[in-house]
Amino acid sequence: MESTKTKILKLLRSEKGYLSGQELCEKLGVSRTAVWKYMKQLKEEGYQIQAVQNKGYCLVDVPDVLGESEIKSRLTTKWAGKEVYFQEETDSTNTQAKKLAEEGAVSGTLVVADCQKKGKGRRGRVWESPKGSSVYMTLLMRPDILPQRASMLTLVMGLSVAQAVQKILDSEKCTQKVQIKWPNDVVLNRKKLVGILTEMSAQIDYIEYLVIGVGINVNTGEFPEELQDKATSLQAELGHSVNRAELIAQIMKRFEDNYAIFEKTQDLSGLLEEYEAVSANCQQPVKVLEPGKEYTGIARGINKMGELLVEREDHRIEQVYAGEVSVRGLYSYV
Amino acid sequence: MESTKTKILKLLRSEKGYLSGQELCEKLGVSRTAVWKYMKQLKEEGYQIQAVQNKGYCLVDVPDVLGESEIKSRLTTKWAGKEVYFQEETDSTNTQAKKLAEEGAVSGTLVVADCQKKGKGRRGRVWESPKGSSVYMTLLMRPDILPQRASMLTLVMGLSVAQAVQKILDSEKCTQKVQIKWPNDVVLNRKKLVGILTEMSAQIDYIEYLVIGVGINVNTGEFPEELQDKATSLQAELGHSVNRAELIAQIMKRFEDNYAIFEKTQDLSGLLEEYEAVSANCQQPVKVLEPGKEYTGIARGINKMGELLVEREDHRIEQVYAGEVSVRGLYSYV
Repeated sequence: MESTKTKILKLLRSEKGYLSGQELCEKLGVSRTAVWKYMKQLKEEGYQIQAVQNKGYCLVDVPDVLGESEIKSRLTTKWAGKEVYFQEETDSTNTQAKKLAEEGAVSGTLVVADCQKKGKGRRGRVWESPKGSSVYMTLLMRPDILPQRASMLTLVMGLSVAQAVQKILDSEKCTQKVQIKWPNDVVLNRKKLVGILTEMSAQIDYIEYLVIGVGINVNTGEFPEELQDKATSLQAELGHSVNRAELIAQIMKRFEDNYAIFEKTQDLSGLLEEYEAVSANCQQPVKVLEPGKEYTGIARGINKMGELLVEREDHRIEQVYAGEVSVRGLYSYV
Repeated sequence: MESTKTKILKLLRSEKGYLSGQELCEKLGVSRTAVWKYMKQLKEEGYQIQAVQNKGYCLVDVPDVLGESEIKSRLTTKWAGKEVYFQEETDSTNTQAKKLAEEGAVSGTLVVADCQKKGKGRRGRVWESPKGSSVYMTLLMRPDILPQRASMLTLVMGLSVAQAVQKILDSEKCTQKVQIKWPNDVVLNRKKLVGILTEMSAQIDYIEYLVIGVGINVNTGEFPEELQDKATSLQAELGHSVNRAELIAQIMKRFEDNYAIFEKTQDLSGLLEEYEAVSANCQQPVKVLEPGKEYTGIARGINKMGELLVEREDHRIEQVYAGEVSVRGLYSYV
């Protein structure tokens, strides 16, 4: 069920001029006093709402406010983001999503935070998570797939994020292209823009739940010096800020659509073409670091199981599973 | 560090006659009053301790008491059971172990309960867990192996339990043979004796933690009617009860030894011979139920990755992964 606040936000955004109090009361089925109280709350949350006698209310500026109602009012999905848990500050959205999962939260639950105190990267690394400028979100799923297929969902999410970001760049006439660095990073201008971390709780043949965490540098103004060559943000590349709630909604939409394609075959065969189009590794020389083994080759894309195909000098094709090796581009940016 | 109570139990058990209060004080470095207090506690827990003036203390009967000290005083392992958490009653020892893991518990932590309220079987099924007669335990591990190799640890545990139980049967001159029904049951007299449930929390290429839950019907007197043909207990087969704490200690010892062999190659190659010796499936006709596919064949043992090898009529060998199919013996008992 949509909350009244979510409905008010939707109505205000869709209205070019003023929306009278009377109209709002009728559409929402609440009293004038209730409308007035909601408007007060929204103003407190940072929305710039003008109230003019005999005309009504008008949203004069759509600020980059993150919050449950703001996100919900923009979602157009069936299940991805069915429940939204927003926190100003949290340890890590993955940790929160796992807790909710243990308590029985439904598949499609989305956890979003404005700030993370213990952001997680792969293998327990720390993920820098400053306040008020980035997207930290985790989607909880209970997919009926085998645990060994879970890694493919990292790629489905990577593709979804890349597509959503590319759409923003295109609409702003920005000519830059978003790329995916297999398996779990999204890069822009050869710098890291997005990191994805998938975790699951599983039995041998059964996923109890899976969480896909996404961290995106959206409106990050400046990076610490040691990261300036390695990381970028949408704001840094576009020159202006981007609405985070809308970006989240766009990613959820893309993910839901891509997942429907994945689900048909339980592999990536239906998404390979789109994935190749945004792959940073494709046709690039790479170095594969396997325990006790190291070799170079040319990345030739991925197969339907999400494995990176690397052509060696003798033209043999190696299938590289995300888990077993670390892959480095021969250029430093990947 | 061993607790004083654990030390007292060890001393009492190793002493054939009486152990004087003076001797106990010296060996433990505590006062007479302290010794007296510990004896009082032990009696309350069910130990039958005789105290005779001028002679000292004597453990006249070693009852089947489950408890932290009782288990610890019998463990001879290096890491398996490093920490023991005992609860009279719990929801499920797997659930408890996972909670402890999230809170940072060390690899080797062992959770034991006398009774489970929400015992778990595979795929969310219920596991019957009555009080005072069975072993419900979960070993927490943080192994440095790939998630897709985790299923092999179910087999390592199955083998360890089968070996420990067989040793008891042998020492009692019982001629019955324990068998493993691939992948996660141990059977005796063609009936289920033990169930094993492995769960893990993992990233794509990294196991955060893994819990191996073991449920054993030890001194179960009678089973509900619908289970009488399907389940058995050690007591039912031997005609008398078995000390559960000692059984736990024996299993931990076997597991630690077997795991050391597993760890060298990160597969089952060093344990195949022992596994085949106790396999219920080996050389037996089986039916393999794969989604959309069903066939019969003869089970020819497992390979080093723990997959069941099934020879079909045309002599092709299928490698059956624990997760992907359900295997039924053509005879009803497996």
